[in-house]
Amino acid sequence: MKLWHCAGARSFRPLWCLEELGLDYDLRVMAFPPRFTEPDYLEINPFGTVPTFTDGDTLMTESTGICHYLAERYGPTSLAVQPDEPDYGRYLNWLYQSDATLTFPQTLVLRYGVFEPEERRLPQAVEDYTRWFFSRLKGAAKLLGDSDYIAAGRFTIADIGFAYALRLAEILKLGAFPENVAAYWARMQARDGYQRAIAKEAGAALFIS
Amino acid sequence: MKLWHCAGARSFRPLWCLEELGLDYDLRVMAFPPRFTEPDYLEINPFGTVPTFTDGDTLMTESTGICHYLAERYGPTSLAVQPDEPDYGRYLNWLYQSDATLTFPQTLVLRYGVFEPEERRLPQAVEDYTRWFFSRLKGAAKLLGDSDYIAAGRFTIADIGFAYALRLAEILKLGAFPENVAAYWARMQARDGYQRAIAKEAGAALFIS
Repeated sequence: MKLWHCAGARSFRPLWCLEELGLDYDLRVMAFPPRFTEPDYLEINPFGTVPTFTDGDTLMTESTGICHYLAERYGPTSLAVQPDEPDYGRYLNWLYQSDATLTFPQTLVLRYGVFEPEERRLPQAVEDYTRWFFSRLKGAAKLLGDSDYIAAGRFTIADIGFAYALRLAEILKLGAFPENVAAYWARMQARDGYQRAIAKEAGAALFIS
Repeated sequence: MKLWHCAGARSFRPLWCLEELGLDYDLRVMAFPPRFTEPDYLEINPFGTVPTFTDGDTLMTESTGICHYLAERYGPTSLAVQPDEPDYGRYLNWLYQSDATLTFPQTLVLRYGVFEPEERRLPQAVEDYTRWFFSRLKGAAKLLGDSDYIAAGRFTIADIGFAYALRLAEILKLGAFPENVAAYWARMQARDGYQRAIAKEAGAALFIS
């Protein structure tokens, strides 16, 4: 298995998952954006998006999808929730939501607030999607309540999906989290698996400074 | 099981999936946007997003996630790809991608091209994310090749995820599809399950005219 990663980017989700599962893998940490710094990368992933993950003939590019793959293909593991568990629907909803509803709005903030040249920035879109993120986060805070984890009463890849969105919000300095989310985020960062993943990217510059 | 749906909206994915699986369910077809037309809806789903799906205590709001839930919870079915199948990673990647990489950009086009009041429209964002959609669609066309289905050589919920993005592109009049994608889209619309789902929403106005 091989994972292409940029420090702080969405590829942190599968990196963290690989560490939680204790799997063997090759890691290629790249400078951002890889389409400029690693011309060969476009041969593997023509869009130049991060992550790219390969496992034999399998090639994947969706960060939460890769976690889902790892937990099912290399399980059984408590990191996956199974269809016969009561929280299966809640778990799946968080997996999909973490990328489609939390991280995608963040990419709008990045694009129109940071990466686009000055004359193409769109402050209104930055503001609209920052507000979107916090509105969804407020909903997430309500669902989380005082639980330690977001589904099934244990640490799962749904936590990886959600907590990475919090890491990105912190990198983007989007603002303060609701109290229970801040406590959850502290718990997530204290995990050995999280710490090992952070150590793996140490020395590389964050994809946004 | 109960599904809240607006004609043409993302809730068409779980509607189509329910019909393909031949499951029993209650359907509530609402006028769009439901936050104005159905005040009670906000009690079930405070964001007012579509779909909402309930099954006993389970409440879900992510269109592709609901399909995933149905195929696993009410299987075994050939609509799901299992972890021991060679195309499992490809299947998962399409499921996640269909919403996070194809449909989300389309929602930007909708928001800043149609739903926002005139003075808040952002033609640049509409153009940027129309281009994004077609760039991703070109990649999708290459991966599809001349296959009848996008993963595992059979119809799966990954096709529901992808084909709905094509339906939305058509509703939004985003432009012509690559030839093999157009042929794939025609095949999808010819399915009995698709036709039954379309019949279920007949009589309701499309969420965008």
